[in-house]
Amino acid sequence: MSVSHRASSPVLESRRSPLLVFAGQSNRPLAQAICDNLGIPLGKSKTEKFTNDNLIVHYEESLREGDIFIVQTFSNPVSDSIMELLLMIDAAKSASAGRVTAVIPYYSYARSDKKDSPRISIAGRLVADLLQEAGADRFLTMTLHSPQVHGFFKIPGDHLSADMVLSQHFKSIVPDAHNGVVLAPDAGSIKRASQIARRLDSGLAMIDKERLSDTEVRPRALIGDVEGRTVFIVDDEISTAGSLVETVNIARSLGAKDVYVAVTHGVYSGPAIQRIASLDVTQVASCNTVLVPEEKIAASNGKLAVLDVAPLFANAISNIHTGASVSTLFT
Amino acid sequence: MSVSHRASSPVLESRRSPLLVFAGQSNRPLAQAICDNLGIPLGKSKTEKFTNDNLIVHYEESLREGDIFIVQTFSNPVSDSIMELLLMIDAAKSASAGRVTAVIPYYSYARSDKKDSPRISIAGRLVADLLQEAGADRFLTMTLHSPQVHGFFKIPGDHLSADMVLSQHFKSIVPDAHNGVVLAPDAGSIKRASQIARRLDSGLAMIDKERLSDTEVRPRALIGDVEGRTVFIVDDEISTAGSLVETVNIARSLGAKDVYVAVTHGVYSGPAIQRIASLDVTQVASCNTVLVPEEKIAASNGKLAVLDVAPLFANAISNIHTGASVSTLFT
Amino acid sequence: MSVSHRASSPVLESRRSPLLVFAGQSNRPLAQAICDNLGIPLGKSKTEKFTNDNLIVHYEESLREGDIFIVQTFSNPVSDSIMELLLMIDAAKSASAGRVTAVIPYYSYARSDKKDSPRISIAGRLVADLLQEAGADRFLTMTLHSPQVHGFFKIPGDHLSADMVLSQHFKSIVPDAHNGVVLAPDAGSIKRASQIARRLDSGLAMIDKERLSDTEVRPRALIGDVEGRTVFIVDDEISTAGSLVETVNIARSLGAKDVYVAVTHGVYSGPAIQRIASLDVTQVASCNTVLVPEEKIAASNGKLAVLDVAPLFANAISNIHTGASVSTLFT
Amino acid sequence: MSVSHRASSPVLESRRSPLLVFAGQSNRPLAQAICDNLGIPLGKSKTEKFTNDNLIVHYEESLREGDIFIVQTFSNPVSDSIMELLLMIDAAKSASAGRVTAVIPYYSYARSDKKDSPRISIAGRLVADLLQEAGADRFLTMTLHSPQVHGFFKIPGDHLSADMVLSQHFKSIVPDAHNGVVLAPDAGSIKRASQIARRLDSGLAMIDKERLSDTEVRPRALIGDVEGRTVFIVDDEISTAGSLVETVNIARSLGAKDVYVAVTHGVYSGPAIQRIASLDVTQVASCNTVLVPEEKIAASNGKLAVLDVAPLFANAISNIHTGASVSTLFT
Amino acid sequence: MSVSHRASSPVLESRRSPLLVFAGQSNRPLAQAICDNLGIPLGKSKTEKFTNDNLIVHYEESLREGDIFIVQTFSNPVSDSIMELLLMIDAAKSASAGRVTAVIPYYSYARSDKKDSPRISIAGRLVADLLQEAGADRFLTMTLHSPQVHGFFKIPGDHLSADMVLSQHFKSIVPDAHNGVVLAPDAGSIKRASQIARRLDSGLAMIDKERLSDTEVRPRALIGDVEGRTVFIVDDEISTAGSLVETVNIARSLGAKDVYVAVTHGVYSGPAIQRIASLDVTQVASCNTVLVPEEKIAASNGKLAVLDVAPLFANAISNIHTGASVSTLFT
Amino acid sequence: MSVSHRASSPVLESRRSPLLVFAGQSNRPLAQAICDNLGIPLGKSKTEKFTNDNLIVHYEESLREGDIFIVQTFSNPVSDSIMELLLMIDAAKSASAGRVTAVIPYYSYARSDKKDSPRISIAGRLVADLLQEAGADRFLTMTLHSPQVHGFFKIPGDHLSADMVLSQHFKSIVPDAHNGVVLAPDAGSIKRASQIARRLDSGLAMIDKERLSDTEVRPRALIGDVEGRTVFIVDDEISTAGSLVETVNIARSLGAKDVYVAVTHGVYSGPAIQRIASLDVTQVASCNTVLVPEEKIAASNGKLAVLDVAPLFANAISNIHTGASVSTLFT
Repeated sequence: MSVSHRASSPVLESRRSPLLVFAGQSNRPLAQAICDNLGIPLGKSKTEKFTNDNLIVHYEESLREGDIFIVQTFSNPVSDSIMELLLMIDAAKSASAGRVTAVIPYYSYARSDKKDSPRISIAGRLVADLLQEAGADRFLTMTLHSPQVHGFFKIPGDHLSADMVLSQHFKSIVPDAHNGVVLAPDAGSIKRASQIARRLDSGLAMIDKERLSDTEVRPRALIGDVEGRTVFIVDDEISTAGSLVETVNIARSLGAKDVYVAVTHGVYSGPAIQRIASLDVTQVASCNTVLVPEEKIAASNGKLAVLDVAPLFANAISNIHTGASVSTLFT
Repeated sequence: MSVSHRASSPVLESRRSPLLVFAGQSNRPLAQAICDNLGIPLGKSKTEKFTNDNLIVHYEESLREGDIFIVQTFSNPVSDSIMELLLMIDAAKSASAGRVTAVIPYYSYARSDKKDSPRISIAGRLVADLLQEAGADRFLTMTLHSPQVHGFFKIPGDHLSADMVLSQHFKSIVPDAHNGVVLAPDAGSIKRASQIARRLDSGLAMIDKERLSDTEVRPRALIGDVEGRTVFIVDDEISTAGSLVETVNIARSLGAKDVYVAVTHGVYSGPAIQRIASLDVTQVASCNTVLVPEEKIAASNGKLAVLDVAPLFANAISNIHTGASVSTLFT
Repeated sequence: MSVSHRASSPVLESRRSPLLVFAGQSNRPLAQAICDNLGIPLGKSKTEKFTNDNLIVHYEESLREGDIFIVQTFSNPVSDSIMELLLMIDAAKSASAGRVTAVIPYYSYARSDKKDSPRISIAGRLVADLLQEAGADRFLTMTLHSPQVHGFFKIPGDHLSADMVLSQHFKSIVPDAHNGVVLAPDAGSIKRASQIARRLDSGLAMIDKERLSDTEVRPRALIGDVEGRTVFIVDDEISTAGSLVETVNIARSLGAKDVYVAVTHGVYSGPAIQRIASLDVTQVASCNTVLVPEEKIAASNGKLAVLDVAPLFANAISNIHTGASVSTLFT
Repeated sequence: MSVSHRASSPVLESRRSPLLVFAGQSNRPLAQAICDNLGIPLGKSKTEKFTNDNLIVHYEESLREGDIFIVQTFSNPVSDSIMELLLMIDAAKSASAGRVTAVIPYYSYARSDKKDSPRISIAGRLVADLLQEAGADRFLTMTLHSPQVHGFFKIPGDHLSADMVLSQHFKSIVPDAHNGVVLAPDAGSIKRASQIARRLDSGLAMIDKERLSDTEVRPRALIGDVEGRTVFIVDDEISTAGSLVETVNIARSLGAKDVYVAVTHGVYSGPAIQRIASLDVTQVASCNTVLVPEEKIAASNGKLAVLDVAPLFANAISNIHTGASVSTLFT
Repeated sequence: MSVSHRASSPVLESRRSPLLVFAGQSNRPLAQAICDNLGIPLGKSKTEKFTNDNLIVHYEESLREGDIFIVQTFSNPVSDSIMELLLMIDAAKSASAGRVTAVIPYYSYARSDKKDSPRISIAGRLVADLLQEAGADRFLTMTLHSPQVHGFFKIPGDHLSADMVLSQHFKSIVPDAHNGVVLAPDAGSIKRASQIARRLDSGLAMIDKERLSDTEVRPRALIGDVEGRTVFIVDDEISTAGSLVETVNIARSLGAKDVYVAVTHGVYSGPAIQRIASLDVTQVASCNTVLVPEEKIAASNGKLAVLDVAPLFANAISNIHTGASVSTLFT
Repeated sequence: MSVSHRASSPVLESRRSPLLVFAGQSNRPLAQAICDNLGIPLGKSKTEKFTNDNLIVHYEESLREGDIFIVQTFSNPVSDSIMELLLMIDAAKSASAGRVTAVIPYYSYARSDKKDSPRISIAGRLVADLLQEAGADRFLTMTLHSPQVHGFFKIPGDHLSADMVLSQHFKSIVPDAHNGVVLAPDAGSIKRASQIARRLDSGLAMIDKERLSDTEVRPRALIGDVEGRTVFIVDDEISTAGSLVETVNIARSLGAKDVYVAVTHGVYSGPAIQRIASLDVTQVASCNTVLVPEEKIAASNGKLAVLDVAPLFANAISNIHTGASVSTLFT
């Protein structure tokens, strides 16, 4: 995906105006890149903490009747990211915004999407309800952990896919990708892996895992065949990279040739960078939905790559603003 | 699972009383079986159609302060089933029911659980909202198409699994089931298949499919190995059995030995029975969440088997009524 | 009422645009006629049934920011008609429609408008709530069974009257209509009859009925005088025509001269056509709010007439779209 | 109906307790009579006006977990009556009442039940919504202007009828009532008149009126026959008695013998008492849903009679409290 | 503040149009003055009372898609004022108004803003909820009893301050106001007094009061120093002027020189005018948020002055309509 | 206040049962102390963070039908505290809790209670709405920044006061407290100070402050007299103690004798402990609504004292559970 592919129209026609993009603290470089693609400045707002650790947000320009997009990814510290977004939505509505769209590149609580143990919260639904209660009129997000999470929202929204970005990335660095095999680290990512495999015209394999307890999971078998083939591991996110290490080891032990990894959300928490730096893979790529600091890239032993999805978000925002169809943009 | 396993307590202690179970028209035999397990009579109600095709429901006994369970499965005609349930919930609430639980053994719209094409409804969410708008306080269902659909409901609910029933059924008719392989007909059912495989201590395989258009899907490959092995095909539902025929054919062409099929919801619409009657499988089993008429069983060439889940529903209702934990009942 | 009276402006000015009219399956000819009057094509959408009898609706053109009108009458199969409309509304909202108006020419559940027996649903209110829950912003309907049903909706709406159409029809075929008498078949239709009588400057009479049980009703007396006079029977709807036959017989037995019948909604279910064909009346007219198939007209022994209300709906839609007053249109 | 017919059980069994009945300022004698029938003291509460004309209500006993009934009729000053009831409901809920039932013997805004002119409020629906917003869990009322108004409430409720009280009253003072004729003053009251006629086994007649403008109505004809017969005029309410005078005059001019009047709600505003005092009728009876001061009775020239409905309300409250069926009580 | 300062633009640009200002019965002169400032005519509407004391409101011009402002102050009779406003909002919404702003110059129930005794209603919150339930999209008010009451509204709103008007008034009639002292009659008005003191660059003092019972309050002490100084008493409202008399007496007894009084809302109920007429103060000024009849001014012994806030309301309405910032207007 | 004052009844009678008290991570010692006072064990629950920084809460015992109290103070990290509480409420509701009360000893966002600058959120209202959206049925809190914040909640709640605890503390350590003067650090705390002054029968004084900018505030004057007197500074909370230092300095510079400080919520953030350690006061006391770690007490140079409010919370919970009046408990 080329960065030159930016939204061309400097003046967007819409019934709601002006178009204003604001950002919380969690990923301002992405918000800035989206604005650059849109050819507009990032909206001026300020977030501070009171001495009692309360957040206070303040818009420094008028929002009356505007078409407001608030970019906030749910990365560490996640609770602060969510509270800040809720406050920004509420402040925008009470400042008479015409419409407020919550732009959440990484909706982390999508992982809490079912009752897999009793007496827990389906937090992905709860957070959706909180956003609506605060006043969000729409949402815009990318690669939810499961596509059903879209239905947790009552408000309309758009769910962008990173599949094209990831598969084009593989094709651009592995010319004969069609001879490789896409490996899903577990049953939950088999659908995503299957779609990437079709885009690459490659094979497909999966690791079957068994849950021993709330926290322990054990691989049972690799379904399919990776021997002697280039392996593409795809998933929705990497956090500590523990599961990734295991997946790579299994693939290697079964004779995989080169291993490439690409995920949408590179959380890289705890020992992740250290593990990746010493991992027997050619590259680990992720999109900039979560901000990856320069230090982490530097410490990754040349393994980390970051793929830019700002143009996709900019196009979606532009189309939402002008009332064009988002669905026809990215196939 | 044995029918003798019925809820023992003839007198249930609860803060809401009495316990009353009513049924719509869609699966009255199941409702009667649940009541038999609970040791109470099925509640008296009447549903008619006015001459303009409007439905009218009428409770023939008092519901004031009662703990009301309404059993209605979403089988053909589905729209009538849903409208009847909505009317029954509304009538129960306005007749001063203490609490109303919608018992929906087969929640058919769970299949519409995501936006896989633009400008459609996530109907699984819509129907959940309609049930709540009508006044449902809780829901009770079995084997949703995807477990995330639980989160489409804001009200509390219980999602029963048929996994134990299906795997015990396989074990009882195939003593060496652990030498077999569980085959998922597509990526969407791999998780369910994986859980059954663990219960059987058997192998796992999956058919990778490719969507050519809105209505056409084509198999790409069978991931895993079925040659010379007993194959257990599991899924959440069978409607026309078109996909089942294809799955069986692929398994057969790759050398599968005996083939057994078990699903939660046996919808058996259109050419299903005719296809199953001539299908090269030993047996096709499904639970009584959807009513399978005697004629269909008779026409199935001895292939169809029906598994009774009334005791599971009865136990769940009993525990909900008395405030015991549903989660600890069925593991 | 002349069909030539169509909305003149091919380009309508409005803050929400474009104006798009879609239709469910229940009365597409009326929707097409409304669009013809508006000078726009009928919007492209598709409704199908999955093999498990679930409905799926799909819009085939963009709705973003549009002013959407969905025409769906509640005729047999009524539950399907309602579910289809709910799905269309929900899909339109989640496809970012600017405003959605449910156009329901015949709102059948208006008959369930009170608690005339215990433990029933006031379904006219329930269905209104369901439409709002699905996302309807407005409604547009004609001749509700009782005008109070308007108040079952919290959203704004317009309630068109067919009185002018019906009375003009009588005047056009019976030049000395003012010498006749309008006969209300029961107390519930006396207000409507009284209004038609004033438009015709004619007399008024009513049949007093007595409810013997839930399903049996018996006439007690005809209040007023019909002897030797042309009788105009008016009502909101005809379904099986059972009540109509009785009304005609009473009028005839009391010496009525010619009898003419006109109602808004011609449901004509069950034995209706057969009864009308042999009924001692000159004509039975109804509006095209419910689709009357050609076969029924052919089988009616020349009795059935259909009055076109598409221009009224087109004018109302045009005025709603442009923000003109609907109330001043039809007096 | 005899006052001796009081609720027998001094100790009522219920899951919510205690049973507490409070009253606003509009009809405390009725509330006291209801409590006398229930055998409990009227709850202690205080309503005052601040010097800026704001109302303040204060409960002087604990309501925690109680089953609270608040008796407030909507009589002059109606706005104060409504505001006081809303404040009492809100204060009860925030004082942790277990359930709050609004007991509104005369729901005056039921008259605003449809859109009979453009750009008005269907205030009967609005007031229902306000009561629910304030926190009412149930309502209990008598003789709504039209029975459809029941459906303006989403919360459950009970709608008592005064028909039996009125017809028994007629029978007790006119032994050969079956020879008389019940006269409906307009089309809106024909259904009620028809039901009373059946209870008396008498004839039925109606005055057909024509609306000339928003405020002017003119009689067109009397449908039916009153000559030489005892006439029973029934309606839901009398306010200035202007329409009543006209009805009586028409009946008299057509040869009616004795004329008796009975309505549910005796509002008697403006010139009503003076008109009734000089009206050519034997008696004008109304229920005590609206408080009729002694002075008015004294000034009525012996015409006014008041019928006690406190036992009906007491029975309904008792049944609601204990979870018995209200519908089976009064047929 | 000069009356010449009126909104200049005769043609206002806005996405919602037209701009229409209507008024209830409580303060039509203020509404007219606001319209004069805006250069538009006051909208035509009619409010009447039915003979049963029900209110009926009727708009006499189309509101479709309009930007509607309804001016209604909460003055005696307050319950009627509130009910009329609720009916006007509901009628406007159901007449398809584009947006409805409740303009409530004096929101009297703001005084009921906390639970200072058990089992009461926080009526300031309740009334806010009622306005929203009726359909208000925004509110506009002035000098709430406490600024927190803003948060009782979920809808966006603007809270105008009369501080600048009051302090400019003091400066204009007392050139050396900076040598005076602003006196708060109790702790509740100290913040407001402090802000006026800063605007005057004057001193500050306060009377500390003690609540003896629900209705009795006793002054404990005057904190600060008023001896020999001009005293400016400021408060949010005056009703019976009882507290004012006491405050003046204390100030006088402690040696205050001239005493000037200015409040936002001059309710002047009961003995207020008589008390003020004989009070030892130079002047009592209030804004025209509440209508002060000419008779009261005439009877005040030259003490009463009225300050015009119509230009502030007109400017706020103009800015809300055009989407300009209200916050930047009045500092 | 003595710890011996614990709730006596080991078996509490209630319609909802069992009584279960759970705690989030923010102040478990207080929750344990409340349970000790109630004579019940603290409920078992577990909160963890996933590797992507998402919170997951899990109840380890059944909650069905129980009366659930969740103790969570809003102390640093505040966003985590709020998210954890929201998740716990949601999980409790979906685990079929009978009633959920959010016990928030320190509701930090009460400080954001008004629009004192444009385009901000009234976060105290927003957080109240979020708690209700998550499913809270009641709240219980202590010393809100302003009492109006109670009205931000629609659900019923109880607002405990620490006034008696603080004033008894002063009396116990300063026998002649009535000769002292209570000093309010600013206008916002004058009401609280006035109430403490009345309890001590002492004098009252206040510092008048002027806001120079969003973050800068400057004292203008001390209203009242502190010379030679013991000074009691009271406030709702201390965070960095910056304002406290200033208040003490002003009091000292005006001749105050001993200075004592007592607040409800001791947040003690940033340089607070260091400042207090070197502050010229005898003691700084606060309640245990916020957990004060031992290290802070140790570092305070003997200045910090902690007052136990667990008995007040235990009594309130006990009374809420049994339906007794909370209002009569603490006066």
